[in-house]
Amino acid sequence: MTGALGTKSSATSSEEATLIDGRRLLRNLEALGQIGNSAAGGRTRLAYSPQDGQARELLLAWMREAGLSVCVDPIGNIFGTLRGCDDAAAPIMVGSHIDTVVNAGHLDGCLGVLAGLETLLSLAEAGIVPRRPIVVAAFANEEGARFSPDLMGSRVFTGELALAQALAATDADGQSVTEALGRMPESRPFGTPPSLPSAYVELHIEQGPVLWSENVAIGIVEGVQGCRWLEVQVHGAANHAGTTPMAMRRDAGVAAASLVADLARRSRDQKIPLVATAGTMSIVSGSINSVPEHAVFTVDLRDPDERLLDNAENQLRFAIARAEADHGVTIEIRRMSQSSPVRFDDALVARAGALAERGGIAYRRLVSGASHDAQMLAARCPTLMLFAPSRDGISHSPAEHTDDDDIIAAANLLAGLVRDLAEADPAASSPHFKQGL
Amino acid sequence: MTGALGTKSSATSSEEATLIDGRRLLRNLEALGQIGNSAAGGRTRLAYSPQDGQARELLLAWMREAGLSVCVDPIGNIFGTLRGCDDAAAPIMVGSHIDTVVNAGHLDGCLGVLAGLETLLSLAEAGIVPRRPIVVAAFANEEGARFSPDLMGSRVFTGELALAQALAATDADGQSVTEALGRMPESRPFGTPPSLPSAYVELHIEQGPVLWSENVAIGIVEGVQGCRWLEVQVHGAANHAGTTPMAMRRDAGVAAASLVADLARRSRDQKIPLVATAGTMSIVSGSINSVPEHAVFTVDLRDPDERLLDNAENQLRFAIARAEADHGVTIEIRRMSQSSPVRFDDALVARAGALAERGGIAYRRLVSGASHDAQMLAARCPTLMLFAPSRDGISHSPAEHTDDDDIIAAANLLAGLVRDLAEADPAASSPHFKQGL
Repeated sequence: MTGALGTKSSATSSEEATLIDGRRLLRNLEALGQIGNSAAGGRTRLAYSPQDGQARELLLAWMREAGLSVCVDPIGNIFGTLRGCDDAAAPIMVGSHIDTVVNAGHLDGCLGVLAGLETLLSLAEAGIVPRRPIVVAAFANEEGARFSPDLMGSRVFTGELALAQALAATDADGQSVTEALGRMPESRPFGTPPSLPSAYVELHIEQGPVLWSENVAIGIVEGVQGCRWLEVQVHGAANHAGTTPMAMRRDAGVAAASLVADLARRSRDQKIPLVATAGTMSIVSGSINSVPEHAVFTVDLRDPDERLLDNAENQLRFAIARAEADHGVTIEIRRMSQSSPVRFDDALVARAGALAERGGIAYRRLVSGASHDAQMLAARCPTLMLFAPSRDGISHSPAEHTDDDDIIAAANLLAGLVRDLAEADPAASSPHFKQGL
Repeated sequence: MTGALGTKSSATSSEEATLIDGRRLLRNLEALGQIGNSAAGGRTRLAYSPQDGQARELLLAWMREAGLSVCVDPIGNIFGTLRGCDDAAAPIMVGSHIDTVVNAGHLDGCLGVLAGLETLLSLAEAGIVPRRPIVVAAFANEEGARFSPDLMGSRVFTGELALAQALAATDADGQSVTEALGRMPESRPFGTPPSLPSAYVELHIEQGPVLWSENVAIGIVEGVQGCRWLEVQVHGAANHAGTTPMAMRRDAGVAAASLVADLARRSRDQKIPLVATAGTMSIVSGSINSVPEHAVFTVDLRDPDERLLDNAENQLRFAIARAEADHGVTIEIRRMSQSSPVRFDDALVARAGALAERGGIAYRRLVSGASHDAQMLAARCPTLMLFAPSRDGISHSPAEHTDDDDIIAAANLLAGLVRDLAEADPAASSPHFKQGL
């Protein structure tokens, strides 16, 4: 990750500012954000719900109005295509998702989908026919808040997950994706899905505090962190808190507390891994006047480098062995889940940086801590993500906020990048594009 | 606290071994331990329960058989008195309690009561009429497991708690002590309670691991630790575990874990206080992939020196202020309860040590970490406790165990001490006895 380049400047001062209609984008975000609104101020559009269906209806209406070729695939991904000179060429794809968690903000994935739509609208209105087709995608069930796994639409589109398996997934009430899809408006598949793109670019809010706190307008995302979830169980001996000398204790709580404090210290001081979190911790059946017998905590390790994740997990295992000796306890550790880091396309990272510099937009490179559809696409084509700042790092909350000029600056950079990529000669793809994936 | 004196020797090698009938004591402990027995192997005789009543019936029968003057006072304390030459002299008192926690061992307070009874029996059988009366007491509701506060009988006997207040205490089902007493055998008060004693000596199991691990037969107890209970609430900020850099976190869980680890380290390394325990700790409403917003833990501080308790609490408050700055959290601390240290009588400590040395019994001085009736008596008369070793420090469990020869050695020392004290001229009490209180 590199530092910010220059200072944050207003989007309207840039030569790229004229590419898109910023006010229309803000209006559309506002309109989409009304769907599924609750009294509490947030909106809830769980995947394949009636509210999700309403949002899909609105998006499809906008796509048709813009003259795009529209398609819904069998898992519910929505594609709108602006035809190019060479319709057989692999398209450039932009997009994200419009499903939400419970009580969400109005940006999140909607920013990527509607900034993508705005890109295509602006190009079409300017009478530009790109060399390659350009597709805006709204991937289904990105959040996984109702049906697991998350990133369902992009997993199926890229072949990472079998369609039949995805359709058979059930929610907490036992309803399957097939059943939920059948009850939702705009659920039936139609049209021809696009082929795998020659490049995919996704704009999303950061969902973290880095850009906001550094007053940087745009994040150029180099990849997605790998993640490991572990559970640690500490077994000591219950004893009287008054009568058991400190040196004779086998205190499961102190052993767990020391491990949690050291885990955070290692990550803070050595950056191994980049972030480490004990999100849950408790002394089981403890009482105020007993030495704790049993404690449990969970560990979330994230890093863009798989070797540093290995290193961090090894360090944790060493610390556990030391804690067993120091505190006379026995400790079990088990992996609950893991995902490998994803690296986005270096050439796209460089190209986006150059574009931002040309526009005088302050940016910084960073790594995504959260999961995104882009990490599924990255296995199939050169992929990049752009982040817009999240005020105070807040996301998945009605308090989620990005300043209007940051939204417009990010959408402009997306449009500029997509226009450049679409103009590239399909017969002479740049060498860093992975052909034939 | 001083080290052990000599090595542990068999009680039967001592000249004092003949004072009591060790086999009868062991038999009586066994018989009393049968009452309230469960299939799980432990016994449950909660205060003022039918099982407690059965145990009281047996104890009273033994007292009557021994020819003692028997009395039950209005809170249910049982007293058996061996008359002395001067019945008007303040008596020597020995004793403890026979109520238990749920699923208890067969020793605990029963050891002190039955070793006291054995002392009186042996003196009576030897035809000895002591100068002062000697009383064996079984104080009611020591454990406080059903009716609060604990040490109820000794609190009422010493005037620390009003009788009416004690009788009005209710259990979890809303039943009062008065009601429970009324339903229990041997509950009605009769006889004349003894006056405040000129000395009180209580034998109890240690309930901690010190004597057992050091292979020392007897503990001579210099006092009871003071105790403070505190609750600490840590408030941070919930954030995404993947997207929030370590330096930008306000992690309530890490702040709590650091405080708990440091609390134990200070006590272990500096002995301030002697023992410190976080018996409960949890991250409230945490999730594996969120930075914790709220954590809570409890603190149990114990030390024989009130100034070191003050010091320990101050150190904790300093650590909390540092943690607030280091972790960007806010922390509340509140005192839940406290009790001051109790110091037993120096002259009695010395006298018991001299007796043990004469008998060739290995002993060590120590401080009680648990509460006992003796700390109530200590406010009213010169008081001492003796401890017998607890195997592995286990108590309040069917696994509670003291070796037979340790039981007999401790009962012999108790008997020797009581005989000496009772022979002291009532008209010329030693100067360290607090006269007239």
